[in-house]
Amino acid sequence: MSAENDFIALLRPLARDPAARGLMDDAAVLTIAGTALVMTHDMLVEGVHFLPDDPIADVAWKLVAVNLSDLAAKGARPIGVLLGYALGARDDDAEFAAGLQAALTAFDVALLGGDTVRMPPGAPRAFGLTAIGEAGPGGAPSRAGAQAGDLLYVTGRIGAAGLGLAMAQGHLTGPPEWLAAYRRPQPRLAEGRALAPLVHAMADMSDGLLIDGMRMAAASGLALEIDLNTVPVAGGTDRTARLAAGTAGDDYELLFAAPPGLRLAQAGLAAITPVGRFSNGAGLTLRDGDALVPLPERLGYEHGAG
Amino acid sequence: MSAENDFIALLRPLARDPAARGLMDDAAVLTIAGTALVMTHDMLVEGVHFLPDDPIADVAWKLVAVNLSDLAAKGARPIGVLLGYALGARDDDAEFAAGLQAALTAFDVALLGGDTVRMPPGAPRAFGLTAIGEAGPGGAPSRAGAQAGDLLYVTGRIGAAGLGLAMAQGHLTGPPEWLAAYRRPQPRLAEGRALAPLVHAMADMSDGLLIDGMRMAAASGLALEIDLNTVPVAGGTDRTARLAAGTAGDDYELLFAAPPGLRLAQAGLAAITPVGRFSNGAGLTLRDGDALVPLPERLGYEHGAG
Repeated sequence: MSAENDFIALLRPLARDPAARGLMDDAAVLTIAGTALVMTHDMLVEGVHFLPDDPIADVAWKLVAVNLSDLAAKGARPIGVLLGYALGARDDDAEFAAGLQAALTAFDVALLGGDTVRMPPGAPRAFGLTAIGEAGPGGAPSRAGAQAGDLLYVTGRIGAAGLGLAMAQGHLTGPPEWLAAYRRPQPRLAEGRALAPLVHAMADMSDGLLIDGMRMAAASGLALEIDLNTVPVAGGTDRTARLAAGTAGDDYELLFAAPPGLRLAQAGLAAITPVGRFSNGAGLTLRDGDALVPLPERLGYEHGAG
Repeated sequence: MSAENDFIALLRPLARDPAARGLMDDAAVLTIAGTALVMTHDMLVEGVHFLPDDPIADVAWKLVAVNLSDLAAKGARPIGVLLGYALGARDDDAEFAAGLQAALTAFDVALLGGDTVRMPPGAPRAFGLTAIGEAGPGGAPSRAGAQAGDLLYVTGRIGAAGLGLAMAQGHLTGPPEWLAAYRRPQPRLAEGRALAPLVHAMADMSDGLLIDGMRMAAASGLALEIDLNTVPVAGGTDRTARLAAGTAGDDYELLFAAPPGLRLAQAGLAAITPVGRFSNGAGLTLRDGDALVPLPERLGYEHGAG
């Protein structure tokens, strides 16, 4: 946890270019000939981000989806990806390629290049993907622009991926859509593009509502209060289930700051729901309706940043 | 070897966008608003591309240098990089950051973003870097444009990195510049920019003169004859030394196809030397002056492509 933050602090002086956004955002935003290009790079490591038993085609899908989710959070249209691929000891490269093809086709993205490596025997597999996209005419919203009085909204429902992970681990049984939320997440690309011109700040919820919400508040220099009672969750509706959903991560819904009363005119998009409010100050406060809820020790999944 | 080529063959149908150059080139070339962006992604894995005892600051340098070498081969000016970083179990993240800073400063490139992951205990470290650059006004030469009658040229001298690797492994002693060639390679950025408008094809020599030359000939649909006697090598000058230099890889000199008599007008650039000739036909022929030399079993270092 802190080693990762320490390392990013070491890198920050190297990231003075405004395109780096101080390494505080989901993606870099580089302006080329008047066009705002959005670039992101995320890795998936066996035993860290996926289970050794997860189907490798699903891992390929997820590798694409988690990177495109960063583009979605910046309102960008994906253009292409570069793949860093560790050849499998299990002779499953064709399955990986099939999952990659399914995702690239589903999201209409081109494979542009990359690198292939053979890992040493017994090493966990590690995959990297760089995604590049083009922001809309209004530019790419940052994580840092929330204003006092803004509400914190989320798209869709959260918590399904966490339940799906528990299913994959054999800890519970549940509907197939929970497992699908964990293994084949859907980046909110259309929602991101529709929302980008309307929001003050936007990010994706890869690590969990509480921690990603807190990061948006901290980056914006504001306090945030989240009302668990308003959070649309998959699974149970008691406070324990909502708290679990808010800290599970891996959902890839969007969270964004915008004035009260925001509506999306466009049909066919996921519902948006206000779940909190930004105000002057600092820190995260959690409520459940009228009751104050102590912050859980673990606010979400901390695996790095960038 | 063939698993890597098989995998790339599986991916080729996903890479129909012309920017991908059929996954046959050092880099992708994406045109945005009339600007040709060059993008590449290369990984370095412990035990595969570097030794566990190599100083981690040198690994960071090399990670930048090998990616910038791909940009150099396309005549591109580097803009920025995205880093995929595996946190160290040895508490050496600050040393990595120092090596990264040294390279980014030396080559005037910005860190734009990336991802940090904690590898499972005991896993080899794996690093990925995406580099993005801007091609010159004449565009980015491909690997495939050589013409019959062109000469194959190289920049600088080759073989020093292979000797440096042997030094790092304790197999020989030699001057510090061999070790530096292995640990802190210098991408030929200025040479690449000067050469790009003058050449028919260009690539970097990451895997070795013989194999990278053969790939250029194959991509161009031509035969290639290399004369070992003309190859400028570091270390000894007998045929064994020249053959070792031609197959060692890791030198990051440029190789390019251009008409006979090419001169670089610009001062301060590495020497260029013709070492072979393209002709109609197929395959690689090796000479040493007047003597035909049988092709060695191992033409170079095959670790993948992209």
